[in-house]
Amino acid sequence: MNKITFKTAASEITIAESGTGANILDLAREHSIDIDAPCNGNGTCGKCKVKLNGRDVLACQTVVTEDSVVEIPEGASAFKSGIKTADLSDERELAIFRDTQRQLSEFTIETGLSIVSVQLSEPTADDPADDWTRLSTALNLQSASLFALSELPDALRSGNWNADCVVRGSRLLDIGPDPRLCGLAVDIGTTTVAAVLADLQTGEILAKASAGNGQIRYGADVIHRIVEAEKPGGSAKLRGAILDTLNPLIAQIADIAGIPRIAIYRAVITGNTTMNHLLLGLPSANIRLDPYVPAVMEFPVLTASEIALPINPDAEVIIAPNSGSYVGGDVTAGTLASLIWKREDSYALFVDLGTNGELVFGGAEFLFCCACSAGPAIEGGDMSCGTRATDGAIEDCVIDASTLEPSFSVIGNVKPSGICGSGYIDLVAELFTSGIIDARGKFAKLSRRIKDTDGIKSYVLAFADESASGSDIEITEIDLDNFIRAKAAIFSAIRTMLAGLDFAIDMIDEVLIAGGIGSGINFANAVTIGMLPDIGLDKYRYLGNTSLAGAYAMLSSSAASAQVTEIKRNMTYLDLSTHPGYMEEFVGACFIPHTDSKLFPSAL
Amino acid sequence: MNKITFKTAASEITIAESGTGANILDLAREHSIDIDAPCNGNGTCGKCKVKLNGRDVLACQTVVTEDSVVEIPEGASAFKSGIKTADLSDERELAIFRDTQRQLSEFTIETGLSIVSVQLSEPTADDPADDWTRLSTALNLQSASLFALSELPDALRSGNWNADCVVRGSRLLDIGPDPRLCGLAVDIGTTTVAAVLADLQTGEILAKASAGNGQIRYGADVIHRIVEAEKPGGSAKLRGAILDTLNPLIAQIADIAGIPRIAIYRAVITGNTTMNHLLLGLPSANIRLDPYVPAVMEFPVLTASEIALPINPDAEVIIAPNSGSYVGGDVTAGTLASLIWKREDSYALFVDLGTNGELVFGGAEFLFCCACSAGPAIEGGDMSCGTRATDGAIEDCVIDASTLEPSFSVIGNVKPSGICGSGYIDLVAELFTSGIIDARGKFAKLSRRIKDTDGIKSYVLAFADESASGSDIEITEIDLDNFIRAKAAIFSAIRTMLAGLDFAIDMIDEVLIAGGIGSGINFANAVTIGMLPDIGLDKYRYLGNTSLAGAYAMLSSSAASAQVTEIKRNMTYLDLSTHPGYMEEFVGACFIPHTDSKLFPSAL
Repeated sequence: MNKITFKTAASEITIAESGTGANILDLAREHSIDIDAPCNGNGTCGKCKVKLNGRDVLACQTVVTEDSVVEIPEGASAFKSGIKTADLSDERELAIFRDTQRQLSEFTIETGLSIVSVQLSEPTADDPADDWTRLSTALNLQSASLFALSELPDALRSGNWNADCVVRGSRLLDIGPDPRLCGLAVDIGTTTVAAVLADLQTGEILAKASAGNGQIRYGADVIHRIVEAEKPGGSAKLRGAILDTLNPLIAQIADIAGIPRIAIYRAVITGNTTMNHLLLGLPSANIRLDPYVPAVMEFPVLTASEIALPINPDAEVIIAPNSGSYVGGDVTAGTLASLIWKREDSYALFVDLGTNGELVFGGAEFLFCCACSAGPAIEGGDMSCGTRATDGAIEDCVIDASTLEPSFSVIGNVKPSGICGSGYIDLVAELFTSGIIDARGKFAKLSRRIKDTDGIKSYVLAFADESASGSDIEITEIDLDNFIRAKAAIFSAIRTMLAGLDFAIDMIDEVLIAGGIGSGINFANAVTIGMLPDIGLDKYRYLGNTSLAGAYAMLSSSAASAQVTEIKRNMTYLDLSTHPGYMEEFVGACFIPHTDSKLFPSAL
Repeated sequence: MNKITFKTAASEITIAESGTGANILDLAREHSIDIDAPCNGNGTCGKCKVKLNGRDVLACQTVVTEDSVVEIPEGASAFKSGIKTADLSDERELAIFRDTQRQLSEFTIETGLSIVSVQLSEPTADDPADDWTRLSTALNLQSASLFALSELPDALRSGNWNADCVVRGSRLLDIGPDPRLCGLAVDIGTTTVAAVLADLQTGEILAKASAGNGQIRYGADVIHRIVEAEKPGGSAKLRGAILDTLNPLIAQIADIAGIPRIAIYRAVITGNTTMNHLLLGLPSANIRLDPYVPAVMEFPVLTASEIALPINPDAEVIIAPNSGSYVGGDVTAGTLASLIWKREDSYALFVDLGTNGELVFGGAEFLFCCACSAGPAIEGGDMSCGTRATDGAIEDCVIDASTLEPSFSVIGNVKPSGICGSGYIDLVAELFTSGIIDARGKFAKLSRRIKDTDGIKSYVLAFADESASGSDIEITEIDLDNFIRAKAAIFSAIRTMLAGLDFAIDMIDEVLIAGGIGSGINFANAVTIGMLPDIGLDKYRYLGNTSLAGAYAMLSSSAASAQVTEIKRNMTYLDLSTHPGYMEEFVGACFIPHTDSKLFPSAL
């Protein structure tokens, strides 16, 4: 019997392990102790580094066979950051929802749910009809949830036979006093889960919050998670991990809004194809196997109780439809919010920079979409010091060309603990323009900021004593390689898609950027590194989380929900992986900004 | 910290109790240790007698304040007997179901469920539609349970794109290989729960079993249980107790039938008004409060997941409708099985001798019903040696008029452990005709069988050394008093009801007896003691468990289910408790056979 003690800054858990030895990562996962493992235990990413009895080891590669102490540094559990609630008095938090609602003015708030008031007669010996007969006759109801039936007797009597009923069609869902009609929109990102709670009578957003997707411990990208889900018991584990994320998140936003979770009668979930399959416990293996056929593209309406969402068990849950194996409900709903489907006589490119990148190009006439396996680097994932855009993240950066010293800002004005997506874009652009790295991402200058660890060079943004984690915050050559491949995937996808449609890059009227990269994205730097085409900064606009905005629109309006299905059906999915020329485009884009410098005239 | 050890013949459980003292009955209930308490802790029934450190005490009236040993004699947990499975090779077990099915020949087996086979085309890169689109398009399906969706990918691929689907309307419930369509009928009696599992394609009964209702520990009759349910947390406790009974019962019959519980797609539940309210967690208080208005009489269709029945979560659960606060779904469904509603030009009396007695009188023209608070004595409940009609129960009895010695048979041919309903009817009739007791149930003779304990006389059927419990099996004057009141309640209800309708007793063409009293009921003895009217033995017929037979009919046929609702709507409920003359009738019937001996000419 070995005792293994896991220590983090916040907690200490000791596990008595009866086997002859246990893999540290497996043991931690079994007991829901979070260790970041973007490569899901392959030993390749190096992010699961922990201290075993004082010595650095990779948790995924180490078996403990005796009483041990495992210290988990803050960095190794960075992605499982807790719930972050939004301050709704900050206008920017709600801008995209207001925009979506205003621009989708043809959709009035309509969900099939309503609150109906009724005055019943009191039963007497001569009129002894039961409560349900009395109510269902008055309101012409055909069915009721068991929850509503159980509330019925006391509600009628305490309200003097006057009742406010929550009704959907001819079904009773709940009965007052003073019921609220609330709804939940959730964007399940591979890295981040974001949710809003809305009043379904007024459309008002009552609370907004986000949290790290707990599935992260099974890998940073969808492929690692599908592989994990294919193992025996894996599907239940992945499903449990996302429910463990959703449960406290939903509890907290209901709390902030001051409503009971039972008052949430409708929910919309947007997420990529893998995320919605894993949430529902649907087999996901075929998503990654030729011919790439998911279990479901257009979901039938499900109920909260089936999914085990902790809201009214009878709530209808609408899952945004997938367009392909790698273009999911986050993109179809996001396309709704992007409004490009309404665009007459001009064409826009909508780019969702999530853990994978997805592109939609077109207008009212046509819509094409594709995915590019950019990987999580653009969001800060799979990078040695990467983090979500939350407190402690370095979100922008400038490097003085003569001193090679950096200056940056940190979200929350605290000591830095990592670098988020927008920070990496600036950092790479600045490293390149100041000549610290060359076009291939290799270090070309010397500075006190540049160190060499076992032959791998890195640039240190913040030294150990300046950082919250107590380690250097840096970008390594491996990170640079990752990042360059990620930006190359995006750029080459844009090129290949437009070329395939016989569209020149400069025929794009507008480029709409969405995703968790953060509102701080510096488009000039994104063009400098060759991630986005060099077609004039005035054509770029950052939208924010379009997936969540689309979910909110679908939540408040059945017509908007139907429109997303319409968008999905009108969208043509292009599989870039089988597209002739894509690999060549990709290789050409694996330079800063590109092997073909004519594509980036501004830099000349 | 006191350690209290509970000992039964089968087990020993020690509880460390941190308080300053604990009521033995409360403590036992908290830890699901079964002590019979028909009066629910009022200290009146004497059935919770246990040995505390070797001395007899009433568990409900005793607080332990030090380390103690509580021995629970077999008798004190007799009603919580385990699951009894039926031997289906015994013709008698299935007779009532066969009869019901045959007589209800206008109902073909029809449940809205079907198994549909389909051959789909295999997806290719050119035809990459998702699994659900492929299937739903082929079968014109509109919705699916999440369970079915999760089975879909593997079922299609393992079956070479040929699939057998379980479909209800346009909804997919499951997908093969080789699905079975099964259904569950459950009669929830106050004392006994009985269930059959049926094949919904053929109607064949695959398994049958019964168990004691676990709510018994909160009282033998419905009033005690309603009172308990009204306490804080009480509703959940009562609901939990019946689910704890149903869970293993359903698991076992599924096991016997060799089908997974997920293959049970439809269920029908019959039970009295209190039983169905407690099962569903509906407030039951108003059932016993003037003007006696239950929450629900005609139940909307519910799902297994709402009720937490361990069968297919999407299964529709049909609850037989209640006719009144004290005439529930067991009687409306039982009336269907009794067939009296089909009777042209003649009138029958249908008597369901459950824990309460219910009467239905009429034919195709009209139906009247009423309840009489006979209490559980007729079933053997609330009697010092009462037991259900299971192994060890004395089920009949003859007393030699000269020696006053008894002879009897015991179910299962084992040592007797108690007396069931049919045994009590015989015993009381024999005690009376042999002159051992007088018309008021008082002992009038001396014999070695008659003992006196603290002034309470009793007749011993089996002495301690002959019994399984190691105690005398006897009937006391208190039992006799209980029993006489119970039989009087039934007889006076019959008289009052018919008198109210201006029907003479001898206009009844047939008396149909149902209930858990057992097929051994001796009608001559039942007439002798004045429980049933003296109108000729040829008019009496024992039907068995009509509630379960009705549930089975409703399960196999939607038309039968609709017919029960029709019966319910056509039935007129009479409230005897407010009926002028009922009390007088009752008092007159509290003799053997009756104060008015002209009513029982056979005995003259």
